[in-house]
Amino acid sequence: MIGISDDEFMRGDVPMTKQEVRILTIAKANIKSTDVVIDIGAGTGSLSIEAARISRQVFAIEKNPVAIELIEQNVEKFNTPNIIIINAEAPNGLEAIKNVDVVLIGGSGGNLIKILETVNRIIKTGGRIVLNCITIQTTAAALDWFKTHSNYDYEAIQVQINRLHQIGQYDMAKALNPIYIVTAIKK
Amino acid sequence: MIGISDDEFMRGDVPMTKQEVRILTIAKANIKSTDVVIDIGAGTGSLSIEAARISRQVFAIEKNPVAIELIEQNVEKFNTPNIIIINAEAPNGLEAIKNVDVVLIGGSGGNLIKILETVNRIIKTGGRIVLNCITIQTTAAALDWFKTHSNYDYEAIQVQINRLHQIGQYDMAKALNPIYIVTAIKK
Amino acid sequence: MIGISDDEFMRGDVPMTKQEVRILTIAKANIKSTDVVIDIGAGTGSLSIEAARISRQVFAIEKNPVAIELIEQNVEKFNTPNIIIINAEAPNGLEAIKNVDVVLIGGSGGNLIKILETVNRIIKTGGRIVLNCITIQTTAAALDWFKTHSNYDYEAIQVQINRLHQIGQYDMAKALNPIYIVTAIKK
Amino acid sequence: MIGISDDEFMRGDVPMTKQEVRILTIAKANIKSTDVVIDIGAGTGSLSIEAARISRQVFAIEKNPVAIELIEQNVEKFNTPNIIIINAEAPNGLEAIKNVDVVLIGGSGGNLIKILETVNRIIKTGGRIVLNCITIQTTAAALDWFKTHSNYDYEAIQVQINRLHQIGQYDMAKALNPIYIVTAIKK
Repeated sequence: MIGISDDEFMRGDVPMTKQEVRILTIAKANIKSTDVVIDIGAGTGSLSIEAARISRQVFAIEKNPVAIELIEQNVEKFNTPNIIIINAEAPNGLEAIKNVDVVLIGGSGGNLIKILETVNRIIKTGGRIVLNCITIQTTAAALDWFKTHSNYDYEAIQVQINRLHQIGQYDMAKALNPIYIVTAIKK
Repeated sequence: MIGISDDEFMRGDVPMTKQEVRILTIAKANIKSTDVVIDIGAGTGSLSIEAARISRQVFAIEKNPVAIELIEQNVEKFNTPNIIIINAEAPNGLEAIKNVDVVLIGGSGGNLIKILETVNRIIKTGGRIVLNCITIQTTAAALDWFKTHSNYDYEAIQVQINRLHQIGQYDMAKALNPIYIVTAIKK
Repeated sequence: MIGISDDEFMRGDVPMTKQEVRILTIAKANIKSTDVVIDIGAGTGSLSIEAARISRQVFAIEKNPVAIELIEQNVEKFNTPNIIIINAEAPNGLEAIKNVDVVLIGGSGGNLIKILETVNRIIKTGGRIVLNCITIQTTAAALDWFKTHSNYDYEAIQVQINRLHQIGQYDMAKALNPIYIVTAIKK
Repeated sequence: MIGISDDEFMRGDVPMTKQEVRILTIAKANIKSTDVVIDIGAGTGSLSIEAARISRQVFAIEKNPVAIELIEQNVEKFNTPNIIIINAEAPNGLEAIKNVDVVLIGGSGGNLIKILETVNRIIKTGGRIVLNCITIQTTAAALDWFKTHSNYDYEAIQVQINRLHQIGQYDMAKALNPIYIVTAIKK
């Protein structure tokens, strides 16, 4: 099942998708046990680990060497040997991957359109793309790309999570930053 | 996996937990394939169905006969014969259930404290209780109950989802009503 | 002061900016008693009325004849004769207005860039533009326009309001749709 | 007008109501130029300052000496001599104040019910009470008090503000913590 707690991951100073967003991202991706998954901008590998526990194979693409080390530590901690780590800046490294069912895009580093064009070539019909977007510009660019590529159906949500912190007899809300989740299916 | 679309359920006029809240509720419940689950205030049965697909047995407790019919239709549609429907107003109907691993409380109809006291007697050590609360009063009552029952650890979040509706070249946010999700583990 | 209740306005079926968003919009516009204000896409005139009570002169621009009638009724109800109603689709009707201190853009009907270019010509140095954006695309377009026009400083917020509805002993949250408010000052 | 920027206040390490919440709080209080206002749990004095600029007299009640100093500095900076600072823990200090039109409660330090009972004795008919609540328990307690005191009409909202931070060509949302604003009118 999905939903590992945030504090179970080795994370250092690398930004990490928060548990609730991870859960929704993985659920929207509708991952099956036979699926091949790519996680672009893998960061700490938290999405890769969740995906690896319910799929056949995960490719974690990450450009930052510090993050790569964290992914390796998390892969060992969670015992998910079906993750292949690729130290590259996407779309580099994507073309060689075959039979792709699901692509998770957590970070695109300014290359979103090139990444989507490459993903479009390698993903199967019926495959699913799920993006986490933290800026207006990335959200707008993703929506516009799917609007103009009629071989995709998409939906999008914004997620805002407030966590209640227990302070004596009180529970006080602390906001996580909101995020857009865009989910597309290739027809 | 979890995450059935809202429009796949038979729902009539009965209020239904929305997909994203369902996903988070089920994930927070950390349901295992051998688990026995109770869904209190089952409504359309949407949480019961999601739980039934990944657990051993689900008991759906619901007082409203119109909702009971919808649950039956959804059980048939999703082919989940491991759901036992109990037409009762909780806590009635709970005491007879054995070996309970997970309790989902979607609706408590003003009986929250009595329900929690009964659940406390029948749930296993290590068992999980997940509540969806749409009012301040129910949220506060649930938090206070767990605060004063030190055999539980709890966490709570508020979830706000905005769905982007596609209107020509635009994507316009429509808000779902926010909900509190309280998750407790019996120590 | 600002903050008229929603139900005091004549509104028909015309969409109306909600009270809390109106309050924030007017406050961000920093309107002074000597100011000349333009309200583009005035709708029911709710923003115009609030602005008229604290400024010298308001021009309400609206293309929809049904909305024009509502504005007229609201002007009479709230006794704000310093509102001049212009039945036009902006940017039409803007060029003739002189000494503009504040421009509120509640609706741009797909003409946002043309409107901003015209507003840029007629607004004073030190003048303020406040936009309410309900779509990702309009928000992104507004932000991009201000980013590429270095004679403006801007800030932007997203506002989400949940109203608690009193249902017997309970208070239940009902979400208003979220909105982006972009505020720019001409340097 | 209301809406001073957060960074214009002297604030030290004392928690401060954020601009958007200040604006909504002051607007909901419907302050008039002849009004007497009490600000309970004044903190940095940011609400007191905003209120002082549009009312006759403000009493700022604050127990923390460090905060008292900040209020004094802000009173001087914003030139609002119509603020009387009272170094006390409310409800202490309230009984002596006459002809109270508006009470703002930003912090109640666990004395909420006692404060409301005292305020109830000193506030005029037609007077307004506006509370900012950051915990579920305080929100629930305030709502319950007004529910059981039928000489008050109340409304309540939850406010969530995300500020967009400009990072190069991107605008990234940073969430402020959500807050409940409860507004009551004495009938």
